[in-house]
Amino acid sequence: MAVALNAFYDEVEARIESGGSGKIVVEEVRGPYAEHVKNPTTVVGAFEVLKSHFGYRFANDVDVVIRLFKGVPIGVGLGSSGASAAATVVALSNLFSLGLSPSDLVYMAGLAEGYAAGTPHFDNVAASVLGKLVTLAILDKGLAVKRIDFDAWFAIAMPTKNIFGEGKTKTMREVLPKAIDLRKAVANWSRLAVMIASAMQGDLETFGKMMELDDVVEPARARLIPCYSEVRAAAKKAGGLGVAISGAGPSMIALARGESHAREVANSMAEAYSKCVEAVAIVAKTAQEAHIIYST
Amino acid sequence: MAVALNAFYDEVEARIESGGSGKIVVEEVRGPYAEHVKNPTTVVGAFEVLKSHFGYRFANDVDVVIRLFKGVPIGVGLGSSGASAAATVVALSNLFSLGLSPSDLVYMAGLAEGYAAGTPHFDNVAASVLGKLVTLAILDKGLAVKRIDFDAWFAIAMPTKNIFGEGKTKTMREVLPKAIDLRKAVANWSRLAVMIASAMQGDLETFGKMMELDDVVEPARARLIPCYSEVRAAAKKAGGLGVAISGAGPSMIALARGESHAREVANSMAEAYSKCVEAVAIVAKTAQEAHIIYST
Repeated sequence: MAVALNAFYDEVEARIESGGSGKIVVEEVRGPYAEHVKNPTTVVGAFEVLKSHFGYRFANDVDVVIRLFKGVPIGVGLGSSGASAAATVVALSNLFSLGLSPSDLVYMAGLAEGYAAGTPHFDNVAASVLGKLVTLAILDKGLAVKRIDFDAWFAIAMPTKNIFGEGKTKTMREVLPKAIDLRKAVANWSRLAVMIASAMQGDLETFGKMMELDDVVEPARARLIPCYSEVRAAAKKAGGLGVAISGAGPSMIALARGESHAREVANSMAEAYSKCVEAVAIVAKTAQEAHIIYST
Repeated sequence: MAVALNAFYDEVEARIESGGSGKIVVEEVRGPYAEHVKNPTTVVGAFEVLKSHFGYRFANDVDVVIRLFKGVPIGVGLGSSGASAAATVVALSNLFSLGLSPSDLVYMAGLAEGYAAGTPHFDNVAASVLGKLVTLAILDKGLAVKRIDFDAWFAIAMPTKNIFGEGKTKTMREVLPKAIDLRKAVANWSRLAVMIASAMQGDLETFGKMMELDDVVEPARARLIPCYSEVRAAAKKAGGLGVAISGAGPSMIALARGESHAREVANSMAEAYSKCVEAVAIVAKTAQEAHIIYST
């Protein structure tokens, strides 16, 4: 599952240019995180994936020209590469009138995400494509995707630099245990079930309790997050309803009771985090789906 | 999580009798499965648990006299002992005006279930106490419980005899792996999340798909269920939306599109099952919560 947040966004502008050769041209990358994008892998990935599935719609004598506004911070556990993948798939699906279902948009964007992450993964792109809270399972063919209309405010403490460098996702994956006790699996299953039901019933208290209970993934990664215990304690002290690592980290995220409470919690968390690494406070609420801003 | 079904029920009649010594007296066990109840362990367990928590309400010079109608078949994976525990806790909570919250009723009934199962467990009793579909997680203190108003019809193929004998629950627990691949845990987490969202959105198709995907528990137990593959195939052939072992088995359960479809699916499943052991077709829909029939 994943949650879409409105704090940051990418924009993709896509147009067709005749006299080309059926390739993608990334004409411009702008925005606050543009300098960190040497090569927008998941934008190119989205083009490749869609072309390989819907090649008959992509003429050989035109190019697809892309301009990317890169607004989602990179390498801090906020799903930056997934956002670009989602935006590109939605843009190209519109440009070529592919008529993809929500579940197919997520599927294609997840394959595109694989160009950055090594293997396809669907959680980040699902939230970026569909908005709010999304759960999904991988089927033999395609995905089962459920979007939940969950409204909530979150507090985030975000390091201003990618403290793990290029291999972060890989590192954070490698610290996970290969096998886990069935007891721990059952405990997490039960918490997740309660968490989803809580989201659907708007029960923030219980959602928060569940989001911070995890004996499998969180403890393995927490050791690598500087000031983890301090940030967690600060979030709880400020009344955060639940706190966890955001994505694969290093950002930390807490559920709050509302906007002003989220501001308080985020400030406390960022202050605690700053004793280890420079970090900023971010406030976000659950966001709408990826959408077309204009179409000619 | 667990689902409450309306096919079978227990009834508990509880009254106070003066001139006693603060003990429980099971005066009568009647009903279709009475002969299999030598000693209604979870009824006695419920009394002991409530007395240990709310002793001040239980006078030392009165006995609690119980009459049990045992309507839930025993040892076939339909939560029989949990039903008695739930009914007794609800009855005694009413008799002694304990004013227990839904979550506390489930907690007490789960402890009572421990008298039969060896360790407390809460899934069966949660469905029996609260009805419909219930998810729960164990907290440091008490439980987080969410009830989902899920309406659905199920088809069941139920062996007429406890083919595993007394130690069934223990046997079925022992075949489970102690540790599992993280990949398998993640796959089941994702399916469960989608399943809960599907229940809340009334999406039977997706709920069915999710309920039959399990690479952990189901395969381990399937080997012990006679004609498992045949019953599963029969359910699918009759259009069952999803099929699984009910509880720890040996009953098998499938989700259907409605009452008449459930009848069809159940007949097919029971016919397939009967090639191995005598089995009957049961049709059930999700049931209401445990409730007081009369109170004087």
